[in-house]
Amino acid sequence: MRTISMILMKERTSMEQVFQYVDQMFEQYVKEVATLCSFRSVKGDNAGLQACRNLLKKKLDALGFCPGEYGGMQEAALLHGYRGVAGKKTLLFYNHYDVVPEGPSSAWTTSPFEIVSENGRLWGRGISDNKGALLARLQAVEAILAVKGELPTGVAFLFDGDEETGSAAISRMAEEEPGALRALTDADLCIWENGRTLPDGSPEAAFGVRSTLTVELKVKTSNGDEHGRMGAELPNAAWRLSWALASLKDMNERVLIDGFYDDVLPATNADLEVLSQYPYDQEGMLARKEIPEFLLGLRDLELKKKIFLQPSLNINGLESGEPWKGFRNIVPHTASARISIILVPQQHAEDILRKLKRHLSKKGFGDVEVIADPNGFPVRTPVDTPWRTVLTRAAAAVYERPLTASITQLGSGPAYLLRTVRPELPIVCACGVAALDSGHHSAKENVLLENYKNGIKFTIAMLYEAGK
Amino acid sequence: MRTISMILMKERTSMEQVFQYVDQMFEQYVKEVATLCSFRSVKGDNAGLQACRNLLKKKLDALGFCPGEYGGMQEAALLHGYRGVAGKKTLLFYNHYDVVPEGPSSAWTTSPFEIVSENGRLWGRGISDNKGALLARLQAVEAILAVKGELPTGVAFLFDGDEETGSAAISRMAEEEPGALRALTDADLCIWENGRTLPDGSPEAAFGVRSTLTVELKVKTSNGDEHGRMGAELPNAAWRLSWALASLKDMNERVLIDGFYDDVLPATNADLEVLSQYPYDQEGMLARKEIPEFLLGLRDLELKKKIFLQPSLNINGLESGEPWKGFRNIVPHTASARISIILVPQQHAEDILRKLKRHLSKKGFGDVEVIADPNGFPVRTPVDTPWRTVLTRAAAAVYERPLTASITQLGSGPAYLLRTVRPELPIVCACGVAALDSGHHSAKENVLLENYKNGIKFTIAMLYEAGK
Repeated sequence: MRTISMILMKERTSMEQVFQYVDQMFEQYVKEVATLCSFRSVKGDNAGLQACRNLLKKKLDALGFCPGEYGGMQEAALLHGYRGVAGKKTLLFYNHYDVVPEGPSSAWTTSPFEIVSENGRLWGRGISDNKGALLARLQAVEAILAVKGELPTGVAFLFDGDEETGSAAISRMAEEEPGALRALTDADLCIWENGRTLPDGSPEAAFGVRSTLTVELKVKTSNGDEHGRMGAELPNAAWRLSWALASLKDMNERVLIDGFYDDVLPATNADLEVLSQYPYDQEGMLARKEIPEFLLGLRDLELKKKIFLQPSLNINGLESGEPWKGFRNIVPHTASARISIILVPQQHAEDILRKLKRHLSKKGFGDVEVIADPNGFPVRTPVDTPWRTVLTRAAAAVYERPLTASITQLGSGPAYLLRTVRPELPIVCACGVAALDSGHHSAKENVLLENYKNGIKFTIAMLYEAGK
Repeated sequence: MRTISMILMKERTSMEQVFQYVDQMFEQYVKEVATLCSFRSVKGDNAGLQACRNLLKKKLDALGFCPGEYGGMQEAALLHGYRGVAGKKTLLFYNHYDVVPEGPSSAWTTSPFEIVSENGRLWGRGISDNKGALLARLQAVEAILAVKGELPTGVAFLFDGDEETGSAAISRMAEEEPGALRALTDADLCIWENGRTLPDGSPEAAFGVRSTLTVELKVKTSNGDEHGRMGAELPNAAWRLSWALASLKDMNERVLIDGFYDDVLPATNADLEVLSQYPYDQEGMLARKEIPEFLLGLRDLELKKKIFLQPSLNINGLESGEPWKGFRNIVPHTASARISIILVPQQHAEDILRKLKRHLSKKGFGDVEVIADPNGFPVRTPVDTPWRTVLTRAAAAVYERPLTASITQLGSGPAYLLRTVRPELPIVCACGVAALDSGHHSAKENVLLENYKNGIKFTIAMLYEAGK
C-alpha cells in the first residue's frame, strides 16, 4: 500500500530525474535555441517567419501535440497544439515567435541572428523576447516525455506570429471565430509569454499584463506658417496643443478627463500585501536617472501603488514649428503630441478614448484631431489565486530564493484577447528565462545561461505541481 | 515785395525741377543701386560689407556730408554724415546696408546679387531691405544739390552695418559713448529705414517700430529618456513644458504673467482715429490663411486695436521626444519651446523678462530654464505729431493717393537705441521704396520701379516741406 509520502517522494524523484536529463541535454538545448533564433522572424520577412513555424510545428508534432495553424495571409500564422492528460488540469502557454527588427547593425557588438555564448549569457535577437522563453517550455515538455513517457498534467501551446505588431491573427480569430479561440484556450491557467528573475536571483510571478492606449493629438490652425508678428491675430497651433494638453492632467498628476477614474478597481488587501513586499529598487532608479525624487515625492508603498494600481497619462513627444531646423519666428500652423495612457482594471481603451474625445470637445478643443486605435484592457489575476501557491512550490524546487509576487508586469500585451473569449482564465507571467537586464528590443538582448536552464526546470516543476 | 504765394510757388517750382531731374537721371540711379546691391554685404562677408561702405562713404563725401565711421572690428561699421542748413531743421535718415543671407540658390529665379529689371520691378537681395531705400535717399539729396546747389533743410545719415544681426555697433555706442550717439542723432525728426505703399498705391507713414522679446524655455527632468511604462513615476519634461506654457496665457489670449499689462499705454483718441481709418485687409488675410475668423473672433477696429496696441505672446515652436524621427513610447527627459513676446509702449524687454521669470518661479516652474537676451522697447511717436502734416503734404506732391497713417510698423528694429540717448526724437517710417509684397528676407525681394522713383521724390518733397 502506497502512502501519501511515498507518492510525494515518487513525484519528487520523477522531477529530479527530469532535471538531471535537462542538465545532460543542456548543450543540445542551447544549440536548438540558437537554430530557432537564427531565423529572422521579423514582420515582412516571410521566409524567416516560415522557417520558425516549420521548426515549431515539427517539434509540436513530434511531442504529440497535433499542431494546427490559423491565419497566415495578412498576418503571421498562429500555431497551436494540445496534449491532454485525463483527469488532470491543463496549462496553456502563450508565447510568440516573431521578434522586433534588429535595428542598425552598428548598435550590435554580436550578430543579431547568431546566438553567441559569452560571460555566462546567451546574446542575440529573440533569445529572451520571446523565442528563448518559448523553446524552453517545449524543451521542458520534451524532457519529461523523454524521461517519463507521459506528462503529469495537460499542456496547450499558443504561439503568436505577430505579437510585436499587434497580434493580428489572434485579434481576427477573437472577432470572427471566438468559439475556435475559446477552444484553443480551454485551460485552467495561462502562463504568459515570459517570466524573469529579480536582481537578487529570485523568480518573479506577475499576475497581470497591462494595456496602453496610444493617442496622437494633432492641431492644424490654417494652411501655412506665418511670420511671428501676426501672433496677435492668427490662431496658433502650438498654443492650442499646449492648452489642450494642460487640460488633460494637472500638476498633481490628476487626470482631468471626466470619468477617467470611474472604473479603477480599489486595491484589495492581497494587492497591498504583495505590493508592500515587492522589492522595487527605488534608490537604484533615482540614482540611475539622477533625480532627487519620484513624481509627487512618492516613496515606498505609495510609490508602488501609483505605479502598479493607478492609471497614468504620459506625453511621449511634442512637435511644432520644426525648431530643430533652427529658430523661426513664426506662428506655427500645425502641432502634434503623442500621448500614452496606461490603463488599469477595469478601464477599457475604447471607453477611455471616448471620454478623452468628449473632454476635448467639452473644453473647446473640437479642433484637436484625435488619432488612435483603441484596443484592449489590462488583464489581472487576483494575487491570492490558489495558483500562486502552486507557482511558489514549483519555484522552490528550482531556485535558491523564493518566488516574488508582482501585481502585474509593466509592459502591455494581447492577453486581453484571451480574456474576451474566456473571461475566467487566470493569466500569470512566470516560468520564463528573462532577467531585469535582458534588454528586450535592444541590441543587448540576452539571457543568463543559468536562467535559461532554470526556466526549463521551473516549467517542469510547474507541470508537476499542477498535476498534483 | 514777395507775397507768401510767390514763395510757395518758388518752392513748388524748385521741387518740380528736381523731380524732372530725377526722371532724367532715373536710368543712372537704377544702375547705381544695382551696383550697391551687387556687393554681398552679409554678416561674415567682410569684403561685401567693405565694398558697400566704400561706395557709401565716397558718396557721402562727394555730397558734402563729411562722413565718419564707428566700430568695424567685432561689428560692421556704422557710417554717418551730416550737412546742416543754418536756421533750418534737420532730418535724420536711418538705414542699413547689411542684408540677410540669400539662402539656398534653388529658391531664387533671379541671381540674388544681380539686380534684374522685370515686369516693372527690380529684383534682388537688398533692393528694398534696405540698400534700395538707403540709396534712394542719397539720390534725393544728390538731385537737389545737382539742380539747386543747396539743401532746403539739414540732413543727417546713419547707416547701420549690422542691423540684421542685432546692430552691435550702435548698441556699443549707445552703451559706451552715449554722448557721441546723441551728437549723431541731433535732429528734429528721424525717418526710419523704409516706407511702403499699400495695395491701393497710397504711401504709408508708420509712427512706430515694435520690439520683440524672444525667449527659449528649456526643461530637463533627468539624464535620459526612459520607456513610457515609467510614466507614472518619472518626471516628464514634455508635461512640465506644457503646464508652464499653459500658465502663461489663457484661451482668451490673456497673458497671465503678473504685471504684464501694467505699463501698456492706453489708446489716445488720435490712435483710435488712425486705427479706424487704417485699411487692414482682413478679408484678404482670412482668405489667404483659409481661416473662418481671427483670434477671439475679432474684426474691424477691435482687431486692429489688438494688433497695433496690445502686447501678445506667441509660441514659435515646440520640441520634445523627437517624434519626427518616428514614434517612440518614452518619458522624454528634455523639452523646449521658443516664444516671442511682442511689446507695446511703455513695456521694456528687461522688465517683462523679469516678470516672466518671477511668474515661472511662483507657479512652481523653477526648473524651467529661461534663455533670453532682453533688449529694447517699442518706439512710438504720437500719431498727431505736427510732422504728420508735413509728411502728408510731401506725399500729396508725389502720389496720386493721400498718405495713410499707421500706429506702428509691425516689425521690430533697433530704433529704441536712438531713443535711449535721445528720448524726445520723433521717429517715423516713411519715404521709402517698399510695397506690401516686397518680400523682405525672401528670394522674391523686389521693388516696383515706380515705387523706387517715388521713394526718391517723396524724400525730396519731405526735405522741401521740412525746410519751410
